[in-house]
Amino acid sequence: MGATGAVGQEIIRLWLRQGGNPTQLVPLASARSAGTLLTVAGQSWNVREAQPDVFAEVQLAIFSAGAKTSKALVPEAVRRGCIVIDNSSAFRMDPQVPLVIPEINREALAHHNGIIANPNCSTAIALMSLYPLHRAFGLKRFFAATYQAVSGSGAAAIRALEEQVRAWAEQVPIETTTYPHPIAFNLFPHVDEFLDNGYTKEEMKLLHEARKILDLPALQISVTCVRVPVFRAHSIAIHAAFERSVDFTRAQQALDAFEGVELCDEPLHNRYPTPRTYTEKYVCGVGRLRRDTAFKNGLALWVVGDQLWKGAALNALQIAACLPKETPS
Amino acid sequence: MGATGAVGQEIIRLWLRQGGNPTQLVPLASARSAGTLLTVAGQSWNVREAQPDVFAEVQLAIFSAGAKTSKALVPEAVRRGCIVIDNSSAFRMDPQVPLVIPEINREALAHHNGIIANPNCSTAIALMSLYPLHRAFGLKRFFAATYQAVSGSGAAAIRALEEQVRAWAEQVPIETTTYPHPIAFNLFPHVDEFLDNGYTKEEMKLLHEARKILDLPALQISVTCVRVPVFRAHSIAIHAAFERSVDFTRAQQALDAFEGVELCDEPLHNRYPTPRTYTEKYVCGVGRLRRDTAFKNGLALWVVGDQLWKGAALNALQIAACLPKETPS
Repeated sequence: MGATGAVGQEIIRLWLRQGGNPTQLVPLASARSAGTLLTVAGQSWNVREAQPDVFAEVQLAIFSAGAKTSKALVPEAVRRGCIVIDNSSAFRMDPQVPLVIPEINREALAHHNGIIANPNCSTAIALMSLYPLHRAFGLKRFFAATYQAVSGSGAAAIRALEEQVRAWAEQVPIETTTYPHPIAFNLFPHVDEFLDNGYTKEEMKLLHEARKILDLPALQISVTCVRVPVFRAHSIAIHAAFERSVDFTRAQQALDAFEGVELCDEPLHNRYPTPRTYTEKYVCGVGRLRRDTAFKNGLALWVVGDQLWKGAALNALQIAACLPKETPS
Repeated sequence: MGATGAVGQEIIRLWLRQGGNPTQLVPLASARSAGTLLTVAGQSWNVREAQPDVFAEVQLAIFSAGAKTSKALVPEAVRRGCIVIDNSSAFRMDPQVPLVIPEINREALAHHNGIIANPNCSTAIALMSLYPLHRAFGLKRFFAATYQAVSGSGAAAIRALEEQVRAWAEQVPIETTTYPHPIAFNLFPHVDEFLDNGYTKEEMKLLHEARKILDLPALQISVTCVRVPVFRAHSIAIHAAFERSVDFTRAQQALDAFEGVELCDEPLHNRYPTPRTYTEKYVCGVGRLRRDTAFKNGLALWVVGDQLWKGAALNALQIAACLPKETPS
């Protein structure tokens, strides 16, 4: 569901790449996109409208169409026997719903009521770097500042950045669309809506989701989320404090050995992750690892991951791969 | 000195705007640029080579040509009776040299040996937001993640970003110049050289310079500095802890009342500082002020300032304006 969106198309692309059978795919969308022909990686499908009864025909649905759509349709799908992996924020904090990054807490998949939530993109990428360090030293507190690509706002935002930069190159006035400000040669600390405490929903998602995924309800977290003129990989600067004293070599080894993470950390050779080098990579890149100068038992680091992949489509497919295979009844 | 550079030209532009007399200006540069005609704001000068003896003719020199040049030439200038405001890092940490942001520590100008250092651009912009809060609550610790414009790397870097974006628009391969990586639609945690502790010089400058300017030698600071595809304003996400309990209204008032700072903080109306809105502004903009979710007595905030102005040229001219007027002998 949401097959024509930026994440939806990546889910299909990755699934085909993993050997998915095109005849088993039912691309769904809202009434607006239904009836169109969707072509991904040379395969074409007619997009169907996501009516509740469609879900009686499918075993597993991946939703990537926003919280409002998920709230309305996911219960209908589950009622019809479908298992749902939901990319939206609608059910993430529901205690009955596992919120899963398979490398971190796949055991949470053992108990679900038909819905499994996929975390927010910044949460997934941040935790890929923090979890191996948490296992080694016990995470106590962290600060994160994000550098979030426009892909996180969907296909229209990618076009907006392209169009604004083209307008600049052609010396015509920039038209501001998608965002309240130009994004070309600009950035703003505004990702998702503002809440009463002055944080954005995106910032508080990282806080609440990290606590749930790591099962650390008292973890101290503060985040600033910023949209930047980059196409599709998110970067995050993290400063973290740990319960136990940090052995630096062990920290490097913990990161390097962790599935889904690549240590890319030879600064003297200009090697650290960048959005360009970690676009269309399955793994998240961690670099700039150093002892933190302001935290006792602290580490500072830099992590970059593809927002559309580990931040959304890839993690959803990884969850699907962890589910017990069911024989169609 | 460094009159043809990005900062040099802004110094001249601002100085003329403040009523500077063009006949009293002696633009200096290295042998490479000497002899060229420099035109700024409709005024033209022949650029002279910065030979030591030139400084016997000038009362006040502003150096903006890098640490190597300053180390070689500033002592020669001082020896010839010239007062030097140095924008480079060469003398900033010298205990004999005042390091000054006039709104914060102009009293440090009372004692100098001919050299006054201008702080690093990120330091100046970060401290403009932190100092009024420090006065109110006593600063104890802070984390900063920067979003630094290419102007900080000089005029060639501004051209590099322009050229790379044009190449993208024309669908020709991007040529990487100035930086080790493309900067168009990209960013990297690499500003200035790497040090043995894994931090960059830029990150450690902010730490050491902030301690000196605030006269807080034990202040706990950790910084990640990142270059972003923005032309000329730096943004910084800051999470800070204070000694005393934080009254939120008083924090807002302290920022709003502070000369050189503008509180731009109505997130529900999409008002927060951005690099575009704080380019060519004298004041630094502070927004996203909120109680920090991870620090006791903590505040999170977002500050943006023009790198070429408050981060360099403007602060240097403000220092000059604070010096006692001398009658030419």
